[in-house]
Amino acid sequence: MARAPLPPLAVSLGDPAGIGPEVIAKCWDNRSAFALPPFVAIGDPRSIAAVWDGPIELVEDPRQADGAFDHGLPVIPLNAPHADIPGHPSVAGAHTSLDSLELAVGLARSGSASAVVTGPVAKEQLYAIGFQHPGQTEFVAERCGVAPSNVVMMLAGPTLRTIPVTTHIPLQDVARHLSSALIEARGRAALRGLQRNFGIPEPRLAVSGLNPHSGEGGQLGREEIEIIEPAIAALAVEGWRVTGPHPADTMFHTRARANYDAALCMYHDQALIPIKALHFEDAVNVTLGLPIVRTAPDHGTAFDIAGQDRADPRPMAAAIRMAAESATLRADAAA
Amino acid sequence: MARAPLPPLAVSLGDPAGIGPEVIAKCWDNRSAFALPPFVAIGDPRSIAAVWDGPIELVEDPRQADGAFDHGLPVIPLNAPHADIPGHPSVAGAHTSLDSLELAVGLARSGSASAVVTGPVAKEQLYAIGFQHPGQTEFVAERCGVAPSNVVMMLAGPTLRTIPVTTHIPLQDVARHLSSALIEARGRAALRGLQRNFGIPEPRLAVSGLNPHSGEGGQLGREEIEIIEPAIAALAVEGWRVTGPHPADTMFHTRARANYDAALCMYHDQALIPIKALHFEDAVNVTLGLPIVRTAPDHGTAFDIAGQDRADPRPMAAAIRMAAESATLRADAAA
Repeated sequence: MARAPLPPLAVSLGDPAGIGPEVIAKCWDNRSAFALPPFVAIGDPRSIAAVWDGPIELVEDPRQADGAFDHGLPVIPLNAPHADIPGHPSVAGAHTSLDSLELAVGLARSGSASAVVTGPVAKEQLYAIGFQHPGQTEFVAERCGVAPSNVVMMLAGPTLRTIPVTTHIPLQDVARHLSSALIEARGRAALRGLQRNFGIPEPRLAVSGLNPHSGEGGQLGREEIEIIEPAIAALAVEGWRVTGPHPADTMFHTRARANYDAALCMYHDQALIPIKALHFEDAVNVTLGLPIVRTAPDHGTAFDIAGQDRADPRPMAAAIRMAAESATLRADAAA
Repeated sequence: MARAPLPPLAVSLGDPAGIGPEVIAKCWDNRSAFALPPFVAIGDPRSIAAVWDGPIELVEDPRQADGAFDHGLPVIPLNAPHADIPGHPSVAGAHTSLDSLELAVGLARSGSASAVVTGPVAKEQLYAIGFQHPGQTEFVAERCGVAPSNVVMMLAGPTLRTIPVTTHIPLQDVARHLSSALIEARGRAALRGLQRNFGIPEPRLAVSGLNPHSGEGGQLGREEIEIIEPAIAALAVEGWRVTGPHPADTMFHTRARANYDAALCMYHDQALIPIKALHFEDAVNVTLGLPIVRTAPDHGTAFDIAGQDRADPRPMAAAIRMAAESATLRADAAA
């Protein structure tokens, strides 16, 4: 018996003064060219109308978006105290962005939406209203009842996927934040995510070194020998296909990328430099380790260009498309 | 009056058991397709004959290579105690590689060769025979009477050039090796190199941050504020066009690269990850700050594939072509 068709995706608008509303509306404009499935935006419809003059279809539930999607951009409206001005973030806008995120996650948790795609938020504004999480990822994890340490951020583009083991810490602190246990946990979550979200039965993970030339046998640092190699060995014992530590500079060219499904990197820029150099327009931020599918475009609110019709919708389109593909893969696997 | 034509380039074979002889011979094979000017190889001709059955023209001086280049690969032969076996480095081979480097630099210094292109050497073997320099670059600097601290390594590809401020040190030590003075010195050498070797009258240098998001205003590290920004300001006062510190992850996509002529990066992998991700087949290692032009392909001896006809000659071809272009630009500027 064929499984039931999936409901639309829930897309949070992010900060109403950022480029989220614009890129989401442009995704609806280009839904055929971008090959996008039905989705419903969640937020203040005025923040969309402020930057876009296309048709908006107000709905109450993602299921209604299926029928409405052909006629206009379906939006589940949130009550916002006032309409934000593009490029001018406000405390009220931060509240709206948080409400939008919360509702989107709730809809996916309940099965009313097939996945969550999150628009960009302004962390500074969120902190000002008492937001306690480092970012949306940790908030989503908590709402899903998963410890933040068990979720991982993956950057996924057409020919490369990377996962940073450490993220927003000073470069100088990276070495002392690394441990075999952390690398193993991130590696395991990445490998399971490749299976669940990407449908790769026997995923191949390439692990980077930390130091130049991967430490050159201990001459340029010993983290490879003392921390990274034991983590790789432990994952291999569990039966995973893991290689490394690889010198980071020779991991990301075309031929090298053909040898693995994802690269586990030791720090933020080691993971983000190659993905953005190669796939700036279509890299997607994927949260692995959650009971739901969550993706996001890999860009910020870009307040400096908000409301100027200059924002590129392709990263948001890539995030929506990838979320739909992952939701389908998961549903098929569960059926 | 037109200046005299330039003499051929001197190309050291590098370690005779590595892929140097093979890629140099293949460059001659493909000299038309690769658009290569006349060059002369320097080393043991037996190490070429061992991996290539094309014609070799023994010459004594680079000038003779001009006429010989149409008929065969010109080689200035060095006396080597025995013929090395591809893939099996030896102490004798290390001596030969050093002699080859020394002669090539001497020919360029004297004006007999228009530039030096160096084949890959095996540092381990060189250390075994008492070589005291970290690499060929420092050796060339010394032979040119330039302090190693005043030369910089640039990685140059068709759409990106990067310069690492620090190179072969553990990642953990990068922050404490950085100083405003060092960044300024490297930046100045890079800017002058862009003028002299690449003919860019008013070069634009983009300086990276060290930390994720360039430190996010001091939240993720203070090196940007305390070390990098003052260096940028000092260079700007001298009249150079310098921007930054830029978050490293958003510096290397197509649109960003259009805004600068070279990127000054804080550590090895920050400079080498993007160049090798984008230009693995044709990135050239250029030494700036020397009285002579020196380039090298950005790969090693690759003993594991030596003698198997598997080595890709494109990086060596790119190094030869770039050396010729830089030599011409310098000669034109001096004429």
